[in-house]
Amino acid sequence: MKQILFIFILVYFSATASSQEKAIQARPNIVVFLVDDMGSMDTSLPFCDSVMPLNKRYHTPNMERMAKAGMKFVNAYAQPVCTPTRVSLITGLNASRTHVTNWTSPQKNSDTDEKDNQFLPLNWNINGLNPEADTERSVRATPYPKLLRDAGYYTIHVGKAHWGPMGTQGANPYNLGFMVNIAGHAGGHPQSYLSEQRYGNMPGKAQAQAVPDLEEYYGTDTFLSEALTLEAKKALAIPIARKEPFYLNIAHYAVHTPIMADKRFVQKYYDAGLDSTEAKYASLVEGMDKSLGDLMDFLKAKGVDKNTIIIFMSDNGGLDAHQRGGAVNTHNYPFKSGKGSVYEGGIHEPMIVKWPSAIAANTVNRNPVIIDDLFPTILEVAGIKTAQKTDGISLMPTLKHPEIKLQDRPLVFHYPNKWTSLTDEAPLGINYYSALRFGKWKLIYRMRTRELELYDLSKDIGEQHNLASANPTETKKLASLLGKTLRERGAQMPVEKSTEKAVPLPDEL
Amino acid sequence: MKQILFIFILVYFSATASSQEKAIQARPNIVVFLVDDMGSMDTSLPFCDSVMPLNKRYHTPNMERMAKAGMKFVNAYAQPVCTPTRVSLITGLNASRTHVTNWTSPQKNSDTDEKDNQFLPLNWNINGLNPEADTERSVRATPYPKLLRDAGYYTIHVGKAHWGPMGTQGANPYNLGFMVNIAGHAGGHPQSYLSEQRYGNMPGKAQAQAVPDLEEYYGTDTFLSEALTLEAKKALAIPIARKEPFYLNIAHYAVHTPIMADKRFVQKYYDAGLDSTEAKYASLVEGMDKSLGDLMDFLKAKGVDKNTIIIFMSDNGGLDAHQRGGAVNTHNYPFKSGKGSVYEGGIHEPMIVKWPSAIAANTVNRNPVIIDDLFPTILEVAGIKTAQKTDGISLMPTLKHPEIKLQDRPLVFHYPNKWTSLTDEAPLGINYYSALRFGKWKLIYRMRTRELELYDLSKDIGEQHNLASANPTETKKLASLLGKTLRERGAQMPVEKSTEKAVPLPDEL
Repeated sequence: MKQILFIFILVYFSATASSQEKAIQARPNIVVFLVDDMGSMDTSLPFCDSVMPLNKRYHTPNMERMAKAGMKFVNAYAQPVCTPTRVSLITGLNASRTHVTNWTSPQKNSDTDEKDNQFLPLNWNINGLNPEADTERSVRATPYPKLLRDAGYYTIHVGKAHWGPMGTQGANPYNLGFMVNIAGHAGGHPQSYLSEQRYGNMPGKAQAQAVPDLEEYYGTDTFLSEALTLEAKKALAIPIARKEPFYLNIAHYAVHTPIMADKRFVQKYYDAGLDSTEAKYASLVEGMDKSLGDLMDFLKAKGVDKNTIIIFMSDNGGLDAHQRGGAVNTHNYPFKSGKGSVYEGGIHEPMIVKWPSAIAANTVNRNPVIIDDLFPTILEVAGIKTAQKTDGISLMPTLKHPEIKLQDRPLVFHYPNKWTSLTDEAPLGINYYSALRFGKWKLIYRMRTRELELYDLSKDIGEQHNLASANPTETKKLASLLGKTLRERGAQMPVEKSTEKAVPLPDEL
Repeated sequence: MKQILFIFILVYFSATASSQEKAIQARPNIVVFLVDDMGSMDTSLPFCDSVMPLNKRYHTPNMERMAKAGMKFVNAYAQPVCTPTRVSLITGLNASRTHVTNWTSPQKNSDTDEKDNQFLPLNWNINGLNPEADTERSVRATPYPKLLRDAGYYTIHVGKAHWGPMGTQGANPYNLGFMVNIAGHAGGHPQSYLSEQRYGNMPGKAQAQAVPDLEEYYGTDTFLSEALTLEAKKALAIPIARKEPFYLNIAHYAVHTPIMADKRFVQKYYDAGLDSTEAKYASLVEGMDKSLGDLMDFLKAKGVDKNTIIIFMSDNGGLDAHQRGGAVNTHNYPFKSGKGSVYEGGIHEPMIVKWPSAIAANTVNRNPVIIDDLFPTILEVAGIKTAQKTDGISLMPTLKHPEIKLQDRPLVFHYPNKWTSLTDEAPLGINYYSALRFGKWKLIYRMRTRELELYDLSKDIGEQHNLASANPTETKKLASLLGKTLRERGAQMPVEKSTEKAVPLPDEL
């Protein structure tokens, strides 16, 4: 009897161990491929129902390839500028809740808001995200890379971080759960894309934006996007060899300013007669696209592509300001405005998800989704539960069944800050704005004037026809929803200098 | 029968899996605690048979504690300068074989040798260690962190790296097998130890020696040695939580120049009446020692100290040049000379090994050992076999049985380079020297003049009594051994400008 029991125990433990092992082996690898400042139109892959003029300008064959092998989201959103989106990405918290509503300076306690005549300085979280430390004016939350790492994922960050300024924990991706960090720090753009300029690290000339960690490539004629790709592949080889599940956050510095030519690609854009700045910009886009292709090829060559989910996303809309070539309000056409704005040009993002073992190829997903959704989605993909609140929802059901229409829910864009004084505000939706996407509707709230605008995106993706007067009922309903949501999340509103009173929420008008 | 076979198979696999698992769990953790430019006398822990005057100057209570809990090596050696030692450490190859015989510049293809009237520039490996890339003038070898990583160790580098210049693979510890790299790059010393100076990263003032990765500490009044310690603890927490074996390479920038006060400790040295530079130096030493204590405390608190082997070591002797306070040839007394020299002051190192589960407490090991030995030792500790040649031997037997006298073997120090023109050469053993330790004997070969010196270290640790004339037989025997060993390793010798002939090996005189 003892012997039988012994054998039974062995059999039992063998079975348990084996199924556990299988479960562990089966955990999907996860890649977030995040582009900086890329607009929805900065690609040859159309994210609207028809091919737009800008789609003909750009060459992104690898985005096309990825979409063919996966799912294209045509109503994906982020916040109007980068740090808010990046913090929402890894915490699952909407910018209205994190109070990280503007980009963070590389310098601690430094407010990047411009001064304003009407409003007092906002008490926003200028020190970004800090997962553990008690840092003043920062949001404290557990980022999912930490949860993934604790669950046995090999977590890699390559590229732009920009989660917090120097002098805070958030400056270093290592503190956010990444085991490997290549080139991520407090800086929000590269000092240079060129290895000949050491990506900014010229002795005595280095500024806070000099890109770290790439000493190996100095003087090797390696464009920054390529160096990051090579580093990502090198980093991926380790968990693949160790048969550990991995999470890769490859966050390109491209296509952020300084707009510099990626000489591997720029000539054909010059030849096409583009303005020189726009030709360089297009080369930045194509260099980033090559990186996407190289990584897909690498994962396939390593035999891990089938069980790897890749999420392609940008952190805000395309830049539409004076550093670009050509006229303002043309760079995301037919979307209105661009980076910094709550109009579609500032928040509508190119998003593609590829996961051969779970997502049908060549599918289009029309559900409105927002950056906040990636936190619960990624955790569900990894099989990790967390008690941490999130403002997003897991996209897993809609990844598997894109034909199912998600219930309408408030997607909130909140920017109670002054981004720039270099541009007209009202026509471009820049400085002191909130917005709501709900179903087909888009509500715009201009805090400076307490004005509301209403657009029907099913008919008017250019937000040209303000329906607020024509449809006061819907306007009021959406203002109520936006106000209620902002209130629940403890959103900040700018305070009038004259009265020292906060701007009312849109349902208090 | 089938069933029985099935059960047998299960039993077999269960047993296999379980013993494998046990073996994996039992793998010891490994810490190399490497100090920069620390001499054997820079401590209150005596490494000679009696307490020396300098032992009374310094306060290193944690080195004393470590020695009480482990084993003190009183005849441990490294090369006279840092990069050669660091390359030997992780490759197991002696400097005479690697041709990395001088410190590497942060700049690629840059020769740090001083110009000389007698000798042509040496074709040494100015680009350091490069594990994979075909880089001109670099040594290609597999460093043990890579072998440890591939075998499932969580490999961490914190602090000074200095394995290769910018523009080469060796610049980034990541390429050498480290999964985590904090603050290691091509630089060989810190631009500053102060967080108020951002460890050198002041915008527009950063040089190649600005310490990377520590943005979190800027402006927090955290001395560099402390920041590295905090980072090491943070990094260690991850494999400990994941129950993975770890390798930590904590390589302090201390106590290298710039000699800056660690204000946590400096006052008592001022109060003791020390020269201000020496007081600052002593504070650098004590700040490093605090780090050692903090790490030992941390490992104990985490319950992993018993199965963790910690190897304390320095990379060359204490600096004895003009940046120090006081007269030359006093800083490693009674050892002669200091950093850069093949006399004991330049190569005799403080070494302690603590491993409670395998090494008896409070033991002294008198066997002569050299930095080359750590490669085979560490691999044996980790249970890893490699076909890679090594010039060292595993110290495992002598760690377990210090009473056993190792067979005499040639320990070689080879420096066919010109380190400095700021100092007298001959009395200090600097520029164009080779040396051999064999048993109690020390042979010195001055290449410039083809002179040999012989010392009996059992009676003359200060190398004051040259026995070459009195004992020509032993001198010839050792010259033959040194010559043979250098020849076998393909060592480089300087070439005379006048004749374009290489200096003869010591057995060709």
